[in-house]
Amino acid sequence: MPPLRSTDSPRAAMSTQIPVVLLSHRGPVSFDRDATSGERTATRGAGGLVTALSGLAAHLDEAVWVFVAAGEEDVAVARETEGAPARLLLDPEPRLLEDGDDQEGRQFPVRLLEIPHEVHEPFYGVISNPLLWFVQHRLYDLTRSPSLGREERTAFEEGYVVANELAADAVIEQVAKSATPPVVLLHDYHFYLVGDLVRQSCPDALISHFVHIPWPEPDSWRVLPPDMRNRLLNGLLGCDIVAFHTRADARAFQLCCQELLGLPTDLRSMTVSVAGRTVRVRVYPISIDIPALEAIAHTDASDEHLVDLDHTLGTGRLILRVDRTDPSKNIVRGFQAYDLLLAEHPEHHGNVVFLALLQPSRQDVKEYADYLAAIGAAASSVNAHHGTGDWQPVDLRYASDMALATAAYRRCDVLVVNAVADGMNLVAKEAVVLNERDMVLALSEATGAHDELGQFAVTLHPFDVAQQAEALHEALTMPPQLRRERREHAALIVHRNDVKRWLTVQLRDLAALAGPDGSSWTDGADRDHTGRPA
Amino acid sequence: MPPLRSTDSPRAAMSTQIPVVLLSHRGPVSFDRDATSGERTATRGAGGLVTALSGLAAHLDEAVWVFVAAGEEDVAVARETEGAPARLLLDPEPRLLEDGDDQEGRQFPVRLLEIPHEVHEPFYGVISNPLLWFVQHRLYDLTRSPSLGREERTAFEEGYVVANELAADAVIEQVAKSATPPVVLLHDYHFYLVGDLVRQSCPDALISHFVHIPWPEPDSWRVLPPDMRNRLLNGLLGCDIVAFHTRADARAFQLCCQELLGLPTDLRSMTVSVAGRTVRVRVYPISIDIPALEAIAHTDASDEHLVDLDHTLGTGRLILRVDRTDPSKNIVRGFQAYDLLLAEHPEHHGNVVFLALLQPSRQDVKEYADYLAAIGAAASSVNAHHGTGDWQPVDLRYASDMALATAAYRRCDVLVVNAVADGMNLVAKEAVVLNERDMVLALSEATGAHDELGQFAVTLHPFDVAQQAEALHEALTMPPQLRRERREHAALIVHRNDVKRWLTVQLRDLAALAGPDGSSWTDGADRDHTGRPA
Repeated sequence: MPPLRSTDSPRAAMSTQIPVVLLSHRGPVSFDRDATSGERTATRGAGGLVTALSGLAAHLDEAVWVFVAAGEEDVAVARETEGAPARLLLDPEPRLLEDGDDQEGRQFPVRLLEIPHEVHEPFYGVISNPLLWFVQHRLYDLTRSPSLGREERTAFEEGYVVANELAADAVIEQVAKSATPPVVLLHDYHFYLVGDLVRQSCPDALISHFVHIPWPEPDSWRVLPPDMRNRLLNGLLGCDIVAFHTRADARAFQLCCQELLGLPTDLRSMTVSVAGRTVRVRVYPISIDIPALEAIAHTDASDEHLVDLDHTLGTGRLILRVDRTDPSKNIVRGFQAYDLLLAEHPEHHGNVVFLALLQPSRQDVKEYADYLAAIGAAASSVNAHHGTGDWQPVDLRYASDMALATAAYRRCDVLVVNAVADGMNLVAKEAVVLNERDMVLALSEATGAHDELGQFAVTLHPFDVAQQAEALHEALTMPPQLRRERREHAALIVHRNDVKRWLTVQLRDLAALAGPDGSSWTDGADRDHTGRPA
Repeated sequence: MPPLRSTDSPRAAMSTQIPVVLLSHRGPVSFDRDATSGERTATRGAGGLVTALSGLAAHLDEAVWVFVAAGEEDVAVARETEGAPARLLLDPEPRLLEDGDDQEGRQFPVRLLEIPHEVHEPFYGVISNPLLWFVQHRLYDLTRSPSLGREERTAFEEGYVVANELAADAVIEQVAKSATPPVVLLHDYHFYLVGDLVRQSCPDALISHFVHIPWPEPDSWRVLPPDMRNRLLNGLLGCDIVAFHTRADARAFQLCCQELLGLPTDLRSMTVSVAGRTVRVRVYPISIDIPALEAIAHTDASDEHLVDLDHTLGTGRLILRVDRTDPSKNIVRGFQAYDLLLAEHPEHHGNVVFLALLQPSRQDVKEYADYLAAIGAAASSVNAHHGTGDWQPVDLRYASDMALATAAYRRCDVLVVNAVADGMNLVAKEAVVLNERDMVLALSEATGAHDELGQFAVTLHPFDVAQQAEALHEALTMPPQLRRERREHAALIVHRNDVKRWLTVQLRDLAALAGPDGSSWTDGADRDHTGRPA
């Protein structure tokens, strides 16, 4: 595989300088008021998607990012700017620029979208989460839930549909303001209906929708009422490109178009025909912003955490996981596997610690609160079974602390990702890049990351606790030379397909589609960085 | 569609008189000892599959049926006959014929297979039920279960695999005894490995495997460890035909061969290529034995139940369901929908009774015991919400009583089948044939029966309680003329595709394959009895 050419940048890919309109639920900044001074504060948005898109927006000459005003102060900003974009300066701390403020640095226009509370609540709290999240990660106990009724229908019609219409209106306004038809980049499961709404108003727009969470096969979608699932699918089919992280997701989407909508679908060329148009289904595995990550990992805070970890662990081995407490992350089975490992291999007693850095998530949803309790119970159980006065095998910490996480990435010997379903999982990519001890990646076959990194990892089967225990033992006993080769190869893959390349390839495809000849599309085959046959 | 010709019988289909070896877990007879006299007793096997196969075996000149010895007395018979077939006389009550007993009537050889308890328990109680049953009906709460460990692996290796080897040995012995290569008909999820085992010993045998429960898409099979799921698939691919009740099941099986095994699969011709052989995937929707059913429905016992029902109901309407208490049957959501119906439509109060005839099932499995409790709670809840001194809206009876069931079939106004997944559901077919009041069939889209009868039914969406409530209201208020037309058309479809035709078409296909020219195979398209485009 040749190295990337220096012209492979988002800007070069969009050499025609087509304007871009971005839409996502969360944005690159959120506003608040300082409790003491009463002054407006701005905080950089977190998460892999926001980091990736921030890089994109800052690299383009003409891009506006539409996102939902999350809190009261966001709404205040949205009202002050009256639906017009304001210029956001990203560094060193984010802030909105006043008219005439010609500060240099990474910056781009943002448009905060106000969605009334009575719309946002059912849109976000009933349909997007949990309904779509649960369906797409297959988290329902189908014998009991979902039990769909009037509430969900109303939430769909008066929440999800209305929120999508509001978002589409904002996008359409931005498209209308543009001298040349822009590229519209829609993101994630909150806005499946927007593509078709924009298409109706802007037939010439180039529209792409990126789905960042797993796309399950038609069986799983049949859990939703036919009307609802068909409208979601048809919303996406308003786009020119529907994009996913993995071939399996892309294939499942096409099977849905075939089976649920009866549309002609070509699984080889990855196209769906609908209403005289051709929709392309594409695969672009998302990645990380390595310089930004390294900057966090080489702060004093991270270094101090590393010293602490070294002091605590001594020569002991560190098994690490870093996750939200989402049931899809499979944290309980992970502890069960570790319990079995310790029961079967007393040689590890006293020599290993499983550090779980967990961020509590969605505790207003019963399934999540129950899951948090189950995590605590499983961790306690391991410590009760095997712990001594000198050694507690599980170190469970609830925190969202990137300085600590990056220190742990650097120090760990095994990184565990055993999710039952995960669109990509960027933790795996972050850890292999930062790690300084030739850690072994223990990676679930049900993550998007497994497509790229699986051959350099110990594969975990998410439902098989005994297999996970064996895999952990294999990871802990792998010869140093093999560990090194695998970790280095995995890191190389992440370096080659970093987030800049993720963006560049997408924009190149869109630029090709915008040109007179749409034939030079990347079909994903030339981006199999693992070198495996596609 | 032309009427069936009189030559369309199992015997005519097998005009070449190829011998047949049948294998199923349950058989046409089970033995016991009378508590008082100590004499051996024989009871006819129950269930749709056993009834169907009994008809087949009795119609063929040369057929032997291998099945598992279930209880102590079955084992005693197995040992007495020392693995050799004994002749079973079916009517009026089943009994084994002694040598030289030339009693006339329906009869065929049976071979009871002893599977040692320590093999049968893990084979049946861990792998077949619940593991395969749960995976194939998608009953797992994947955030928690299954949590596969050593027990399941051992149960697979020392239970499922060994039981399949024992069954294969018995089948192979029967094949070896045959002068001409016989047709081997394997049945259901207990014996997925047998096809390949028989193929290895008998390369020339014609082998078919019929899967009677839903076949889910690859996502669901990924719940099983790769080694286990691949062995199950490869076992089936030892056959010449793998048969299902619906096109959706057949398609999902082919998708599994494509995605999980990477085998060349032609979804149009419904074939899978494996090891130089072509495996045909076929669709034969099972049906009922109408004369046998009518015989039960016109006994004094059934008539007495009908008088009782008429007396109790008066002019009231009867909603009926007849099910095992399996979580796949979706009984709880059915009561929730009825509750919503009564809340929104007080005009039905006092005028309708929901009779649920439920057969307790697998109460040694925790999920089943929990589900039985949830059923009771849901039924009580409806009666507490809406019941009066004169009227209890739910009549919940735990019974397995065909006389009562057939009386209820005759009397009901609405039959409810709202399963979350069901291979076929013969209750729907039985009811439309026997009903005397132009009942409305309210039928889940997730049943095999919906393919044939859906257009004459009110379709139920199994996860949407509000939709089920609306559908029940529609059923209760449908104009009499429309009810009549639909019920009659549905009954006509069942009469045309009765169990004899189900068997005949399969045997015709197998006979064609046995002949010099395998090209005249039925591909399922000419058997779409609803007249809908395939």
